[in-house]
Amino acid sequence: MRIYVSDAKKEKGKSVLISGWVHEVRDIGKMKFVIVRDQSGTMQVTLKKGVVPDAVFDSVSVNREDVVSFEGEVKENKIAPDGVELVPISFQLLGKVERKLPVDPSGVVPSELDTRLDHRYVDLRNPRVLNIFKAKSVLANSFREKLLELGFTEIHPPSITGAATEGGTDVFPIAYFENKAYLVQSPQLYKQLAVIGGLDRVFMTTPVFRAEKHNTTTHLNEVVQMDIEMGFADHQIAMDYLEIVVLHMLHKLGALAPAQVIRRHTYSSLVEELNRHGFKMEWGEDFSKEAEKRISEILGEDLYFIYDWPTKARAFYSMPSEKDPEICHAFDLIYKGLEIASGAQRIHKVDLLEKQLQSRGLDPHKFEFYLNAFRMGAPPHAGWSIGLERITMKATNQDNIRECVLFPRDRVRLSP
Amino acid sequence: MRIYVSDAKKEKGKSVLISGWVHEVRDIGKMKFVIVRDQSGTMQVTLKKGVVPDAVFDSVSVNREDVVSFEGEVKENKIAPDGVELVPISFQLLGKVERKLPVDPSGVVPSELDTRLDHRYVDLRNPRVLNIFKAKSVLANSFREKLLELGFTEIHPPSITGAATEGGTDVFPIAYFENKAYLVQSPQLYKQLAVIGGLDRVFMTTPVFRAEKHNTTTHLNEVVQMDIEMGFADHQIAMDYLEIVVLHMLHKLGALAPAQVIRRHTYSSLVEELNRHGFKMEWGEDFSKEAEKRISEILGEDLYFIYDWPTKARAFYSMPSEKDPEICHAFDLIYKGLEIASGAQRIHKVDLLEKQLQSRGLDPHKFEFYLNAFRMGAPPHAGWSIGLERITMKATNQDNIRECVLFPRDRVRLSP
Repeated sequence: MRIYVSDAKKEKGKSVLISGWVHEVRDIGKMKFVIVRDQSGTMQVTLKKGVVPDAVFDSVSVNREDVVSFEGEVKENKIAPDGVELVPISFQLLGKVERKLPVDPSGVVPSELDTRLDHRYVDLRNPRVLNIFKAKSVLANSFREKLLELGFTEIHPPSITGAATEGGTDVFPIAYFENKAYLVQSPQLYKQLAVIGGLDRVFMTTPVFRAEKHNTTTHLNEVVQMDIEMGFADHQIAMDYLEIVVLHMLHKLGALAPAQVIRRHTYSSLVEELNRHGFKMEWGEDFSKEAEKRISEILGEDLYFIYDWPTKARAFYSMPSEKDPEICHAFDLIYKGLEIASGAQRIHKVDLLEKQLQSRGLDPHKFEFYLNAFRMGAPPHAGWSIGLERITMKATNQDNIRECVLFPRDRVRLSP
Repeated sequence: MRIYVSDAKKEKGKSVLISGWVHEVRDIGKMKFVIVRDQSGTMQVTLKKGVVPDAVFDSVSVNREDVVSFEGEVKENKIAPDGVELVPISFQLLGKVERKLPVDPSGVVPSELDTRLDHRYVDLRNPRVLNIFKAKSVLANSFREKLLELGFTEIHPPSITGAATEGGTDVFPIAYFENKAYLVQSPQLYKQLAVIGGLDRVFMTTPVFRAEKHNTTTHLNEVVQMDIEMGFADHQIAMDYLEIVVLHMLHKLGALAPAQVIRRHTYSSLVEELNRHGFKMEWGEDFSKEAEKRISEILGEDLYFIYDWPTKARAFYSMPSEKDPEICHAFDLIYKGLEIASGAQRIHKVDLLEKQLQSRGLDPHKFEFYLNAFRMGAPPHAGWSIGLERITMKATNQDNIRECVLFPRDRVRLSP
């Protein structure tokens, strides 16, 4: 049975079968060296004329990135990388490179991002690229691991909807048989319905679709959201859970910022702080990229919450503070200067929801379905969402979100 | 802090806070009984005039499905359900039912499936319904748990594609800015590209979209697939992994069929067996529903594989047998008479892929992108896919796949 090269290296004196891609090859007449790479690392295969069977020696004529299998003994060799080599007794050529490689998988010859994305099946062979996706897998699964431990149930919201509930502009329309439908912008409605249905601690990892036309290094038109929603909770409890989950995720990745506690700053205190440091910003505005950068410098914190936002700056369903309705129970989580998560306590009272809709010039009749759900016994609840690509981007120190998606979808990119 | 009623019942003599929905209420003058339900179960709250504070006694005027919170002491009471009750010192009405409930959450008054689906946020309060979604969550997460343990990496394929690779008929078209795009029918291409890229053991849970017009109890137009793809593997290894994963999933759910081993039958042997039992079927046909039912009876097995299918009956990328190219290395997994998973070893040689395309009257030029990937060093590989809704349906003994989707999408259903 084939084993990974990282495991093979531990089997000194034993016979193993390794398979992978030809990372490097050197042929110096009576000696051939083939460096085999799989997702666990690389290993040297040494073929010496007279030592390995002639049939094996003669048949090994390979080029970089051919797919090969070698069976043989793992031997100590002080001058080989890691001090071990494989001396083969059999060889198989499993896949041949038949075209010039469009991207150098070693990364020595740099390629444009677009060329790399067009040929992810070669680009991914670069260990630097591979590691981003291993990190992404760890982040997605440690998110779920912690929530299952906390008693949450996974749900699977739909991606297709008949009504564009969160405004009709930034949605993708679908021809759905005889009907018109849209791609879902957020699982917000569905997770709230689950909580109203008594499944009061739910999580999900789900693609969401935004037809936003801007083309930045932090936005894509299809991304994966990691969401929760919980009944009988306010924004402070929701932040407690977000803190526990995000620290667990970064800890699992070994990418934890020094702070084991995530400090919570009110929106107002940060606006004040900025102005005190000579950075002019009006209360009520959203933070610009420059403002976010400046705050992170002033605070000197890698991870922090901003909470108690101006009500008008947040979604209509965010719960206003009882003491001061100009402020609502919404929050963002900032990681290395980028918003990677946001959430809020939600309004669960119909009269307040209607009021909030009206205050934004929205017609409550168009939200009748949504409002009706709150008339059937709705508990107080809160929730949040983490952007999987964004947290991966910051945790692996990438400067473009496209680096963290195998097959990104932006305004122009629809393939592969 | 609020705790679930299942936990509260264990806290005899202690003070707890419980929150949930009013499952039942009885008011007999000087005594009031409120049965509180949360997702963990139900608990009796007993209010006796003179025992609980007057303010609490007087304020408790609730109806079924109102959302409430009670704080008080857990006391033994032999005649209460489970022998315990809560004697409250405080009460809060958190959410009021303001409309007649469209569905009886106790399930005593039956509702049509359509009515229930229109009001999932009430239907889900029925413990029978709730348990289906708890089971689905266990199945999805035990799938991932086992694959992570086996060294697989999770990937996230896109849902939008510029080209309808698997034929253009059963896809949903999207207006994607200035371009035409489609919803993805299967992550097949993407998982193969990941393996060719050296990420040679991948899994994913991803929505897929099929614009099929039939309306059955086992099909939907949006479902969740649980997929894997692995390099350096054939169909037998892929079946080994599917067996390990499915047994783990059903074991975690406590829904394991008696067999701890899943037997593997060739397609040909089952056709022969059917004919031997007087059920006429031609070699080369797919099994009809009746044939599947009959086979399951003949075999007397809850879970079994059918492998070595006629090449023409399977996707063009299924690897034909070297000995007999009329047969290919594809397989299905049948559970309680329903196909819940299918897979195959894939063709990784370009010349063979081209031949298979041509033999089906498909133009290899239209598959140039796909073929090109196999020219850059492609290993032998195999993979499979489990339908999350289908395995949930059979594991929880439902007769309609819609029972296993919170918000199903079929030909006509686009909301909520």
